Amino acid sequence: MAEVVTQANERPPGTLEVDAQLVEDITALLESGQQGMVLNLVADLYPADLARLLSHLPFEEAQQLFRWLSEEVGSDVVTELDTSFRTELLEDHPPERLTRLIDELDTDDAVDVLSELPDDVALQVLPELEDAEDLQALLGYSEDSAGGIMATEYVAVPGAWTVAEATEEVRRHAETVEQIFSVFVVDDEGRLEGLVSLKALLLSRADALMHAIMEDDPISVATEVDQEEVARIMERYDLISLPVVDHEGRLVGRITIDDVVDVIREEAEEDYQLASGVTGGEEPTDSILRISRGRLPWLLVGMVGAGLSGVVIGSFEEALERAVVLATFIPIVMAMAGNAGIQSSAIVVQGLASGDVWGTDMVQRLGKEFTVALINGLVLAVVLALAVLVLPINAEAGRLAMTAGLSLLIVIIIATCIGTVVPLLLYRFGIDPAIATGPFITTSNDILGLAVFFLLATLIYI
Amino acid sequence: MAEVVTQANERPPGTLEVDAQLVEDITALLESGQQGMVLNLVADLYPADLARLLSHLPFEEAQQLFRWLSEEVGSDVVTELDTSFRTELLEDHPPERLTRLIDELDTDDAVDVLSELPDDVALQVLPELEDAEDLQALLGYSEDSAGGIMATEYVAVPGAWTVAEATEEVRRHAETVEQIFSVFVVDDEGRLEGLVSLKALLLSRADALMHAIMEDDPISVATEVDQEEVARIMERYDLISLPVVDHEGRLVGRITIDDVVDVIREEAEEDYQLASGVTGGEEPTDSILRISRGRLPWLLVGMVGAGLSGVVIGSFEEALERAVVLATFIPIVMAMAGNAGIQSSAIVVQGLASGDVWGTDMVQRLGKEFTVALINGLVLAVVLALAVLVLPINAEAGRLAMTAGLSLLIVIIIATCIGTVVPLLLYRFGIDPAIATGPFITTSNDILGLAVFFLLATLIYI
Repeated sequence: MAEVVTQANERPPGTLEVDAQLVEDITALLESGQQGMVLNLVADLYPADLARLLSHLPFEEAQQLFRWLSEEVGSDVVTELDTSFRTELLEDHPPERLTRLIDELDTDDAVDVLSELPDDVALQVLPELEDAEDLQALLGYSEDSAGGIMATEYVAVPGAWTVAEATEEVRRHAETVEQIFSVFVVDDEGRLEGLVSLKALLLSRADALMHAIMEDDPISVATEVDQEEVARIMERYDLISLPVVDHEGRLVGRITIDDVVDVIREEAEEDYQLASGVTGGEEPTDSILRISRGRLPWLLVGMVGAGLSGVVIGSFEEALERAVVLATFIPIVMAMAGNAGIQSSAIVVQGLASGDVWGTDMVQRLGKEFTVALINGLVLAVVLALAVLVLPINAEAGRLAMTAGLSLLIVIIIATCIGTVVPLLLYRFGIDPAIATGPFITTSNDILGLAVFFLLATLIYI
Repeated sequence: MAEVVTQANERPPGTLEVDAQLVEDITALLESGQQGMVLNLVADLYPADLARLLSHLPFEEAQQLFRWLSEEVGSDVVTELDTSFRTELLEDHPPERLTRLIDELDTDDAVDVLSELPDDVALQVLPELEDAEDLQALLGYSEDSAGGIMATEYVAVPGAWTVAEATEEVRRHAETVEQIFSVFVVDDEGRLEGLVSLKALLLSRADALMHAIMEDDPISVATEVDQEEVARIMERYDLISLPVVDHEGRLVGRITIDDVVDVIREEAEEDYQLASGVTGGEEPTDSILRISRGRLPWLLVGMVGAGLSGVVIGSFEEALERAVVLATFIPIVMAMAGNAGIQSSAIVVQGLASGDVWGTDMVQRLGKEFTVALINGLVLAVVLALAVLVLPINAEAGRLAMTAGLSLLIVIIIATCIGTVVPLLLYRFGIDPAIATGPFITTSNDILGLAVFFLLATLIYI
């Protein structure tokens, strides 16, 4: 019977679920040194599940178990581990074992692992590796570029070859190129000319020429293209495998969709973290100091921004002294200015990232957002004004309701316009709107919102 | 020369970039009815780029252009359009053309389009379609389940067949099954027994039996598994194609990685929107009323929450009257309580979603977050206290600095603990922590933070 997942969070392997119970059992067995039993227990786990088990074990037990794994299994697990945890786990590994582990990896994964090793260890291991030359070249590319995530495991043949010859070439590379979706066609200089899908290869006559059956001018990327752009291209054009070329158009690597899925997930997680005020791609297994370092700058920026809002409030101290009830509206003004601004900016930032919104869409976008702000602002202003009239607030309810409602409407409209315009402007000036938008928009909207509220209060209420 | 992307935002097709200029040119040509010139201009565009062009044209011109497209091109474009825009675009299409368009689609895309049509139109079109029976079955699955995103275009053969026979079967389905990565092996009852990758099929002897070369017990999912879980499984186990089975283990469909990439992107966008207070998967092309409806509830919830913070401030009105300077600290307390809480909850929510954090990790996680909060809280408290001492604030600086610093430390620790515990508790009770976390944590942290601050102020400062 096949292994069927029938409900959320059930593990496909079926035989063994990696949960707190298993972690406890394995820890106990590891502590009493039961190598045979432990290896027996984990033998059926997929690499990704074994990696999850390792990251939940006490660190010394994880080290122990990892050392017991064969290089073949160990290398499959290594690619599934979080970066920082992997670095710790490999720290005191003997170079000979590191060499054997890395030799089992595809070049793109090997480069990742190599670049995380301490420099002296990497320099010791690199010359011993089978693909030393390829890896040396790959290490030269920026980590976040197409060159940095591509692998050199691919099959390329001249266009004059027959399908039978190309198939033989696939067979020769069958072991090193585990996943293969298409065969690339290159000219004498190694320049990419076309590609033939495995399906086309399978269904074509053995004596057909690759030139005759290839797709001309396939989409490719240069080595320096950013990985986010690579992800967008593969996603947009539904590609499973993307050739990477150098400046002369020579084929130098290929990126497969599973690497890009990781990029998409990573970038999405980072965007979500950024929106939540966490920088640097925090992972649950990170050390306390690393976590603290990733969060503190944001908190400091937030505090300075909030301090400026405090200064605005301070400058209306006189008004507050005469009507302390105004202070109770500070949270509402701040919350609404922040929320409305972030709503608009989130849509613009996302639209810019996906290409659905262009830097030139300013007027159109602003018109739409302004109308939305007008509708929502009116609804909220009426609700707030009614609440002020109905609730037992010890003040001149009528004028207070008018002050509160009117400020709210103005604050929401201003905040929305700022939330729309700022990311578009940043984008036009070549600044990543995602990074700059959050704290900047929240802070400036808070300050402007409070200023509008207290100004109106001085005019209408006091 | 192949088409190489060399920098961000450059379009791979090379020949024609979809930008504001092209939109303007095409609009002018459409207005003057130049069908031939327009079709010539767009002939080289990839479907995804043509879709982008359509969504930037004035609506009537978009309708006109879409009507001019052949069913073959039109169907490729249809799958790339935003849902709401697609619905509008197809609204007044004659049923005969709809039938021809949908017949060109893969079943998974056909179901999406069918389910978006008005009921009477769908009922009229459905019986006329080639795959009417399959589509009827697919329409029965929930939209967000494996059944809802799978396609019925796959190749399955008995295990007793030879490689040559299986290859012939691939050839027979070559036109309908455009993307093929593996051939499934099923028993007499149609139950999934294994799979053979196209690579294995290509490299095996023509007379080898499928039983002999297949991977046993491949990972599969049941039709009712949620699409997010499907994405997680394909990502975790690096799968390109995932078979879907019914309750008897019979193969009923397959999901390919490109569909799942869309799911991952969609879910990530929704999480980001949720964190930014936008519900319902807003798209830039949505109507103003739809946008307003998606944002208003969040703003209302935010206003009520902020109103409660206002009530807390109101209950300390006496203290404020005696020392109005306290009001200037309200933004700092609110910002810090909110930020620290959201930082912790973001990591927990993300960890729970990816499976890296478990519901049972409470004590461990809380210990870590508490320590981080202690470190960051102390740093920020010292900075704030020093700022109060240094800045020219017209008050008893020493006691005010102590009040501010101490409150900040306590507020950050409380906020962090709430941000950590709440999502874990929600998860244990089977509630999606992502949805419930944002507003709940921000609001409760604001309220608690302000209460702590004003209580301490009453004790220490006044």
